[in-house]
Amino acid sequence: MTKIAIDAMGGDFGCEPIVAGVIEALKERKFHAFLVGDEKLVRPLVPKEFGEFVTYVQADEIFEMKEGATDALKKKESSIYKAIELVRNKECNAVVSAGHSGATMSLATLRIGRLKNVIRPAIATLMPNSQDKRTLVLDVGANVDCKAEHLFQFAIMGEAYAKAIMGIEKPRLSILSNGEEDSKGDEVTKEARNLLKNLKNFVGNAEGSNIFDGSVDVVTCDGFMGNIVLKTAEGVAGAMNKLIKKEVKKSPVAIAGAVLMNKVFKIVKKSTDYDEYGGAPLLGIKDCVIISHGKSTPKAVKNAIFQALKFSNSTIDKMIEDELAKFTDIKNKAKL
Amino acid sequence: MTKIAIDAMGGDFGCEPIVAGVIEALKERKFHAFLVGDEKLVRPLVPKEFGEFVTYVQADEIFEMKEGATDALKKKESSIYKAIELVRNKECNAVVSAGHSGATMSLATLRIGRLKNVIRPAIATLMPNSQDKRTLVLDVGANVDCKAEHLFQFAIMGEAYAKAIMGIEKPRLSILSNGEEDSKGDEVTKEARNLLKNLKNFVGNAEGSNIFDGSVDVVTCDGFMGNIVLKTAEGVAGAMNKLIKKEVKKSPVAIAGAVLMNKVFKIVKKSTDYDEYGGAPLLGIKDCVIISHGKSTPKAVKNAIFQALKFSNSTIDKMIEDELAKFTDIKNKAKL
Repeated sequence: MTKIAIDAMGGDFGCEPIVAGVIEALKERKFHAFLVGDEKLVRPLVPKEFGEFVTYVQADEIFEMKEGATDALKKKESSIYKAIELVRNKECNAVVSAGHSGATMSLATLRIGRLKNVIRPAIATLMPNSQDKRTLVLDVGANVDCKAEHLFQFAIMGEAYAKAIMGIEKPRLSILSNGEEDSKGDEVTKEARNLLKNLKNFVGNAEGSNIFDGSVDVVTCDGFMGNIVLKTAEGVAGAMNKLIKKEVKKSPVAIAGAVLMNKVFKIVKKSTDYDEYGGAPLLGIKDCVIISHGKSTPKAVKNAIFQALKFSNSTIDKMIEDELAKFTDIKNKAKL
Repeated sequence: MTKIAIDAMGGDFGCEPIVAGVIEALKERKFHAFLVGDEKLVRPLVPKEFGEFVTYVQADEIFEMKEGATDALKKKESSIYKAIELVRNKECNAVVSAGHSGATMSLATLRIGRLKNVIRPAIATLMPNSQDKRTLVLDVGANVDCKAEHLFQFAIMGEAYAKAIMGIEKPRLSILSNGEEDSKGDEVTKEARNLLKNLKNFVGNAEGSNIFDGSVDVVTCDGFMGNIVLKTAEGVAGAMNKLIKKEVKKSPVAIAGAVLMNKVFKIVKKSTDYDEYGGAPLLGIKDCVIISHGKSTPKAVKNAIFQALKFSNSTIDKMIEDELAKFTDIKNKAKL
């Protein structure tokens, strides 16, 4: 049975939504949950009938959102540190955390370790597109100031995820740029594109709009861009919703219309809802690490666990290592 | 009377929508239009009663979208070249072009020239926000690979635009980054933020979502980021519209609802509609240059002309020069 370490304390709303999500997941799938946190708070939240699928791991501290990621290594009694150690010590196959993402990323890198030849792990996220599918964007994590070979590796890791987890046979790989043409891009992007031409599934530049129109499967960018794209998308969707709601309130006719359209709005909300994806996989680490939103609902936690199950039962890590092994000299090509 | 040079040929759909937009503008405001293009195509589109407000300037060539901006200087018979020359020669106060934006930018820089101390002109664009106002984002043009002092100057130019054209007394200036905290940002962004702290209206980092929530008035970024933010926003809005339409079609109840909500959707469309803004001002040039979308409708052209009128009757250029003069040594501070 797959064993999943869950940082029960890291989320913004304490352990309740996290544990509730674990229970929801246990209702649907078989796995063993290692709940890492303050046992006296966590244990009462687990109904008796699930007891046999749960192990409690006491952690006295919480790594707070306001702390610097670089301090994560020092706080050995924190729930995230202990959850990561369970994977490091092979007691668990995967870790799910809604805590400090920077701390999770550093601890995963330093305590679990990178896959062979991976320079920097990357956080990948799924964005809904108008083709009713999802587009994988990476890095959306802490990798600012990337070099061309980092972006090249992100594409390889994204390709492996698309194949192994999303089930796409030939994922269309792209690099985010300010235009379709080869002449577009900043220096690093242009250099990275030269490297990416070595990958047979590489289809060229993606513009911001291509993330949402289903024309590509994997979009590579640095973590600075990735974060801005993510927040821009959230901002636009939020502003549109707010505007629609405000205008609807002004007219009884529109209110009636909105009632009749309720089902449509629910579907739209669902397709753009973070909860449906559950979490962002950290790619390039020796085991499975899923980073969830601090504001994760039980449903988001459940979906993050399902993602961890799929990930840890896949061959994605081997795929990444095998592919990277073909390009160990890529750094030298970067300057071409 | 303000004289506006209009590149009548540069748009994707030929001279019809451009000239139609000029006529719409002439119906509402007094100005003199210099229509630059193929006179035998343009003249028949102008109704007799507007004849006294129009001067025709023959241009035998069109600078095509597929041409490289660097060739713009050589094509002296193109409509954009001739339109720019009218401003250079003081025959016109402003130029509006829906043609090749790179060519317009190079010609404006090389033939009209930059304001004193401006290193790089920037294209600014207005994005709608949920506070029923607009946020100015710059650069969304060709300035990839910016240095800190470029970003610093963009903020100063954006501030002047916000004061002079948008009528904001104390514009909240920000720099686009991957988090609110001072520790966030790539190297150039962090360096630029250090410089921006010298401006009293600077409020710190903006995240992608802040562009749309009305919490800042001016967002500074390089042209690479700016383009991606713009396209991402278009992509999200487009995908949401497409999804709503698709789901509505599936159910007669939802169709009825959409009919009742028609007015709301129109308002939302209007507030996110490029046509309402008309064009993006090129800031940092000695005179007014408004760059419109290649697919501009007559309404967009009309609004671009209105923007040109407001711009050329403002003191924005003096404001930019005066403010930049205070910081001529800022480059030396950039390395602090």
